[in-house]
Amino acid sequence: MKSQYDAFLKLITELHDIGHAQGLLSWDQETNMPAKGAAQRARSLGALAGISHERLTSPRLVELVGELSESSLSGDAAVNVREIKRSQDRALKIPRELVVELSETTSLGHEAWVEAREKSQFDLFAPWLTKILELQKRAAHLIGFEGSIYNAFLDEYEPYATTEEVGPLLKELNHRLVPLVQKILDTGTRPAEGVLDQVYPAEQQEAFGRQVLSDLGFNTEAGRLDVSVHPFCSGLGLGDVRLTTRYNESYLSDSLFGIIHECGHGLYEQGLPADADGTPVARSVSLGIHESQSRMWENMIGRSRGFWEHYLPQLQQRFPKQLSRVDVDEFYAAVNQVSASFIRVEADEITYNLHILLRFELEKALVEDDLAVSDLPEAWNEGMRRSLGIDPPTAAQGVLQDVHWSFGLIGYFPTYTLGNLYAAQFLHQARQEIADLDERVRSGDFASLLSWLRTNIHSSGSRLTATELVKQVTGEPLTSEYLMEYLESKYCGLYGV
Amino acid sequence: MKSQYDAFLKLITELHDIGHAQGLLSWDQETNMPAKGAAQRARSLGALAGISHERLTSPRLVELVGELSESSLSGDAAVNVREIKRSQDRALKIPRELVVELSETTSLGHEAWVEAREKSQFDLFAPWLTKILELQKRAAHLIGFEGSIYNAFLDEYEPYATTEEVGPLLKELNHRLVPLVQKILDTGTRPAEGVLDQVYPAEQQEAFGRQVLSDLGFNTEAGRLDVSVHPFCSGLGLGDVRLTTRYNESYLSDSLFGIIHECGHGLYEQGLPADADGTPVARSVSLGIHESQSRMWENMIGRSRGFWEHYLPQLQQRFPKQLSRVDVDEFYAAVNQVSASFIRVEADEITYNLHILLRFELEKALVEDDLAVSDLPEAWNEGMRRSLGIDPPTAAQGVLQDVHWSFGLIGYFPTYTLGNLYAAQFLHQARQEIADLDERVRSGDFASLLSWLRTNIHSSGSRLTATELVKQVTGEPLTSEYLMEYLESKYCGLYGV
Repeated sequence: MKSQYDAFLKLITELHDIGHAQGLLSWDQETNMPAKGAAQRARSLGALAGISHERLTSPRLVELVGELSESSLSGDAAVNVREIKRSQDRALKIPRELVVELSETTSLGHEAWVEAREKSQFDLFAPWLTKILELQKRAAHLIGFEGSIYNAFLDEYEPYATTEEVGPLLKELNHRLVPLVQKILDTGTRPAEGVLDQVYPAEQQEAFGRQVLSDLGFNTEAGRLDVSVHPFCSGLGLGDVRLTTRYNESYLSDSLFGIIHECGHGLYEQGLPADADGTPVARSVSLGIHESQSRMWENMIGRSRGFWEHYLPQLQQRFPKQLSRVDVDEFYAAVNQVSASFIRVEADEITYNLHILLRFELEKALVEDDLAVSDLPEAWNEGMRRSLGIDPPTAAQGVLQDVHWSFGLIGYFPTYTLGNLYAAQFLHQARQEIADLDERVRSGDFASLLSWLRTNIHSSGSRLTATELVKQVTGEPLTSEYLMEYLESKYCGLYGV
Repeated sequence: MKSQYDAFLKLITELHDIGHAQGLLSWDQETNMPAKGAAQRARSLGALAGISHERLTSPRLVELVGELSESSLSGDAAVNVREIKRSQDRALKIPRELVVELSETTSLGHEAWVEAREKSQFDLFAPWLTKILELQKRAAHLIGFEGSIYNAFLDEYEPYATTEEVGPLLKELNHRLVPLVQKILDTGTRPAEGVLDQVYPAEQQEAFGRQVLSDLGFNTEAGRLDVSVHPFCSGLGLGDVRLTTRYNESYLSDSLFGIIHECGHGLYEQGLPADADGTPVARSVSLGIHESQSRMWENMIGRSRGFWEHYLPQLQQRFPKQLSRVDVDEFYAAVNQVSASFIRVEADEITYNLHILLRFELEKALVEDDLAVSDLPEAWNEGMRRSLGIDPPTAAQGVLQDVHWSFGLIGYFPTYTLGNLYAAQFLHQARQEIADLDERVRSGDFASLLSWLRTNIHSSGSRLTATELVKQVTGEPLTSEYLMEYLESKYCGLYGV
């Protein structure tokens, strides 16, 4: 099998190298590309996608994957064959015409969504959503699934996870979060007001953000920070990890925590196993695990009291006028303000999960044919009343707020909350193994946590599935206990409830 | 032939789209890529080059090109088939092993050159240059040529040009320039000193450069300006033209004229025929014509007295301390200082040609086996004494200064001076057709010249060869008269010789 595996490696390395080009074209589109470059960029991305699909499903690679799958490979080789087989099977099962139809429909559907959101008219988007769901369900049936049809979607972003496992966990979380949030909201406290909503010049925000990035261990010899409308992290290679942010000069925390969030993603990408560079083993294991890294750094570290004991004096030096009279307790409370808000991306760490759980419930019902598109807006509003006690005044502030469905991204939302669950469970374990972790954070030493994450999570790449990884690192399956424990302890303390 | 031509178009459009990706990867490498991203970038560029070669020489495209070449196509279709056939023939004639050997040899040869230049030891580079020349000559014989073997090289950068035509023109130019330069140097005047060699903060240089870019007509909705170590222009598409510069804070003119130079390239790229986007017709016709655009704007417009009558007051506002006591005549003289210098890239508009002519003569002699690599350093120094009366004290300031040969680029140098010849002849014609051109430049109106260039040169794309283009636009073949006339009139006036 040695010569077959070498031939396989050669072909999949080329696929990886094409992927690098696709990644750079997409990154540049969001950061540098002049407006009139859009049409050529779209054609070029289309050409690369076509070539990549052709190479992935080439008779030679299909034959090699078939032979290697039947053989008794182990270790990294087995993972690489398994992961390429997954993508290849998906690519082979969906005929080219359906790929084209989906691509065209989501492209037009996305345009319709932009207009619908602008005008806050769900009707303008409804026929497109219906069509997108129909095509996606057709694709799901071609790909195949066990249990709920939703598994075919979830599996694309959180490989090997199932609705049957994830659903009860999320339901349990919802059940416990709603009363906690209610108690907090009942206090009527708004600690961020007057603190974060001042004028904060972008230049100073950037300088502070870059300092934090460097302190947390992000290697700028192997990555960059740029500006884009929607912040993201793009891993173009283990030595080329690119983060973006945007600066809001009238609200401090957007970019500040945005940078820490993307830094968490970036540290994961920089820590993937270099010895497997160019193969699936060196890729992140799932969106949920990726999100666990960004959310752990952003929320559990970046919004901790210890973190600000260390950083507030530095931040005050950058913004003396705005912050000299704010003490650590006030600042800590401000960056952890809980609100019942309509918009997911503006939500705090705790209610964010309720936004996700609503979307999970709704998109699952849509693909399982338990909910009609025409009933979606009311189901949305009803969900908001139930979980947060608020009623979106417009569709733009409700069902039309997220871009995901217009792009056909179904099964993506739950990975955000899975990220929180993984993060809490990992961090609980890290605290067992690094006795003085909180003390270290308080003194600005993040190296021990990063080292622990490198060893236990980053360097695993895709060698273990997310489920296996959680089990191996924490000794037990994923549970909602650690997230609830973390949130209750932190927020009951903060809000005195 | 309609269906064959459509099939052909589809295949060559994909090639163009891959080219866009290659272009972006290269641009990013010079502007944004973090240091540790280099290895992945090289692999990805290699993969795209391989795919592009495979597509260009695919049996289907070879068959289509064969059929279409035999048919009676005309207009753009004929040009597209002719140009793809040119590249395809080249690609088919050079076996893969030779491509790989050339690529590896120039990669290692380039490293050897870097070290040789650093230590100023020609010996370190000599064996590599010998090997590079040997491989390049082997390639030239495979490609085939008429007359001098040098034609096989020249044709790659200046298609359809021949040494037999270009050689005498360049010789004539050399013959007339040497005594002119001697007379100027004998005056001993150094008008730039004390004017350009002051402290000029980069930020202000950039602001002024962007203003000029915009005034000259560069569309920033369809392009950008960035910083790189070596300035260049990259046409990633008609709507995405990227220029770079570098700021020297202790010498004003480097970036100032660098930006105008790249802007000239950029205006050409933005003016290529949009109706032929994605096909060879919409490409620049040759490096010489490309260079005619950059050098016309940089030297003939940007270093003209009228240009500074308009811009000096604005520049003085940006740099009052440095320039308030400098008048237009002084500034005009400063930016046109003639010196006998060792380094080509630092040479003035007039001696620059002597640097090029020496390189042309030497590389031609090398590939025609009239000069041994071991005799090259002395031939170089002898040439410098003959043309500029100076003797390079080290190899680094002489034969080792340019990167070109280390990359195997032979036949590239003459396109710089061809650019000057084309530019002078075009501008002479433009003056016939735009009666008050100099008056317009003096008042900061560049639109009429740009419009003339758009109509006569840019929009032609590759429809005519460079030779045909010059004939069509100016009514006569390329001659050295107009460049000599321009240089004599300008510099005799400036230096009173």
